[in-house]
Amino acid sequence: MAELGEFGLIARITAGRELPPGTLLGPGDDAAVLVAADGRVVVTTDVLVEGVHFRLDWSTPHQVGRKAVAANLADVAAMGAVPTGLVVGLAVPGRTPISTVDGLAAGMWLEAGQAGAGIVGGDVVSSEQLVVSVTAVGDLQGRAPVTRSGARPGDVLGLCGRLGWSAAGLAVLRRGFRSPLAVVAAHRVPEPPYGAGPQAASAGATAMIDISDGLLADAGHLAEASGVGIGIDSAAVPVASRLVEVASALGGDALHWALTGGEDHALLASFPAGVALPVGWTKIGVVREGRGVTVDGCEVLPAGWQHFP
Amino acid sequence: MAELGEFGLIARITAGRELPPGTLLGPGDDAAVLVAADGRVVVTTDVLVEGVHFRLDWSTPHQVGRKAVAANLADVAAMGAVPTGLVVGLAVPGRTPISTVDGLAAGMWLEAGQAGAGIVGGDVVSSEQLVVSVTAVGDLQGRAPVTRSGARPGDVLGLCGRLGWSAAGLAVLRRGFRSPLAVVAAHRVPEPPYGAGPQAASAGATAMIDISDGLLADAGHLAEASGVGIGIDSAAVPVASRLVEVASALGGDALHWALTGGEDHALLASFPAGVALPVGWTKIGVVREGRGVTVDGCEVLPAGWQHFP
Repeated sequence: MAELGEFGLIARITAGRELPPGTLLGPGDDAAVLVAADGRVVVTTDVLVEGVHFRLDWSTPHQVGRKAVAANLADVAAMGAVPTGLVVGLAVPGRTPISTVDGLAAGMWLEAGQAGAGIVGGDVVSSEQLVVSVTAVGDLQGRAPVTRSGARPGDVLGLCGRLGWSAAGLAVLRRGFRSPLAVVAAHRVPEPPYGAGPQAASAGATAMIDISDGLLADAGHLAEASGVGIGIDSAAVPVASRLVEVASALGGDALHWALTGGEDHALLASFPAGVALPVGWTKIGVVREGRGVTVDGCEVLPAGWQHFP
Repeated sequence: MAELGEFGLIARITAGRELPPGTLLGPGDDAAVLVAADGRVVVTTDVLVEGVHFRLDWSTPHQVGRKAVAANLADVAAMGAVPTGLVVGLAVPGRTPISTVDGLAAGMWLEAGQAGAGIVGGDVVSSEQLVVSVTAVGDLQGRAPVTRSGARPGDVLGLCGRLGWSAAGLAVLRRGFRSPLAVVAAHRVPEPPYGAGPQAASAGATAMIDISDGLLADAGHLAEASGVGIGIDSAAVPVASRLVEVASALGGDALHWALTGGEDHALLASFPAGVALPVGWTKIGVVREGRGVTVDGCEVLPAGWQHFP
C-alpha cells in the first residue's frame, strides 16, 4: 500500500474499467461529470467501518466492496431512481496489502455494473482503520421521487426482496460456522431488488424505504415520516424455509430474523388500495390511522441496529 | 456521542438548517433530491482523517468542518461549476464529545452556505478514528466543464487565490507557535476563490485545476493530462509579504512555500493567448510544447503531498 502512493492507488482502482454512457467525464479530473437528463438528481451516502460493519476474517474485500455499493444503490432504488454513478472514499491503513484494495475495487465495480453504474471518482487516504465511504448519484427518469412520507391510511403495504437472510448468516458466523453458505453469502453480499424501486414508483407507490435496519424499524421510520400507523400481518411476511432450517439448527427464530434483521436491503412500499402490486411484490400489511407499527394487531418496539448502542 | 445514537446525531446535524432553493428533498429520506437544470452534474469526493489531514489540538472541529467542505467546493469550482449540495459521512469514535460533532456540522454548514449550497444528506457511524468524508454535487449552468486536459501550447497560465499560506501556517504550528494568526488561520481554514472557477470557464479557460497538492505538483498534473509542458515565471508568482516575514522569522523560504505548499486551494487555469484574464487572475507562466514543469526555464521535480510517502 504505502509503496504505491495515492496517485498509483487511484489509477489502480479506476484504470481500464468501462464507464457507462451517462458518464461524460470519468475519474482523473477534479470532479466527474454525469448526465442528469431528468433535470434532478438523487444523491445518497453510506460509510462502512471495518470491525463495525464488516470483518475481513468473515468477508473478502471483494464482498465488502459489493456490500458497500449495494447499500447505496438500494437507497437510490428506494427513491424510485436508477443509479448513474458512484464516487468512493477509501481510508486505508498503510500496512494493508494491495490485494485488499484491488479486491474492494473489483467488488465495487461488479456491484455498480450490475445496476448499470460506474465508479466515476474517488479519494484514497491513509488511516488506522479501514473505512469505506460510498456516494451514489441517481436519475429519476421523469418519475416523482418516492419519499418515506407519502403513505396514507388505507394504503396497502408491499415488500420486495429478502428478509432475515443477513441476520441468519450473521448468527451462523457468530457461532463460528461458515455454512449453510446461502445465508452466510447473504450476510456478506446482499441482493437488493434494484429494479423493484423504479417499478414501484411507476406503479404509483405512495411511500418507499430500503430495509437496512430491519422490517419493523424501517416500517417505523416510514410510519413516522408519513404520520400514520402500519399494521403488519406476520403470516404474510415471507420466511424462507432455509431460514427456518437454520433457526432450528441454531436455536434461533426465523420470524424474528425476518422482522428485525437488517442489511438485506429489501424494499418496503405503500400503494393505494386497489392498485395491483407489481410482479415480485407481496402484500404484508396495511397503512392505517394512528402511529407506530403493530404485528398482528400488537404493538411492537422496533428493534433496529444502532451504531451507538 | 454514544448516548445520542445514530438517528439523534443525524437529526442534530441537519435540524433547523435552511436549505437552498435547488434542494428538492433534503435530509431524512433514503436519498436527497437536487435540481440539475443543466442536464449534467459535477460530482467529487474527499476524505479527511484525524492525525493525517487535521489535528484537533491545532484546529477546532468547526475549522475542520469548514476545511473538509472547502476542499470539495474548490474541486467543483475547478470544473467551472457551482455547488448545489453536499452529503457528508462521519465516522466518529464513541468517546467523542457531542460538541465535536456539533462543531464539525456548524463549520460544514457555514462553508457550504458561503458557496450557496446546503448539506442534503449524510451518514454517521462509529469508528476508532475520526474520518470526515464529503461529497459535493455541482451545476455547470450551461458551461462546458473545464478539465485538466485542454491546455494547448501558447496558452497563458493564470492563477487566482492564495499560495503558500497553509504551508506557512503549518510550519508555524510545527514549531509549537500559534501566531502569526493570519497564516495559522489559513492552514486551519482555506479560502478558495469559489467564484473564480465559473468566471474562468466563462472567459474561455482551456484547462483548470484546484491547487491542493502545491503549485508545482498540480501544474504537473495539468501538464501531464494535457500532454504539454508548463513554464512558470517565479517573479510572477505572488508571494505575500506576510509569508516573507514568517519565513524570515522561522528560517523558511516563502517562495518555496508558494511553489510547493498545498491546501490553499487556489485555482490554476490556462487561457488562450490574447484572452484578457478575468479580474483577480494573475499570469504566472505559459503553456508550451513538451512535457513537465519548469520554473524560470529550469526543470523541477514536483514535490507534492503524498499520503503514502
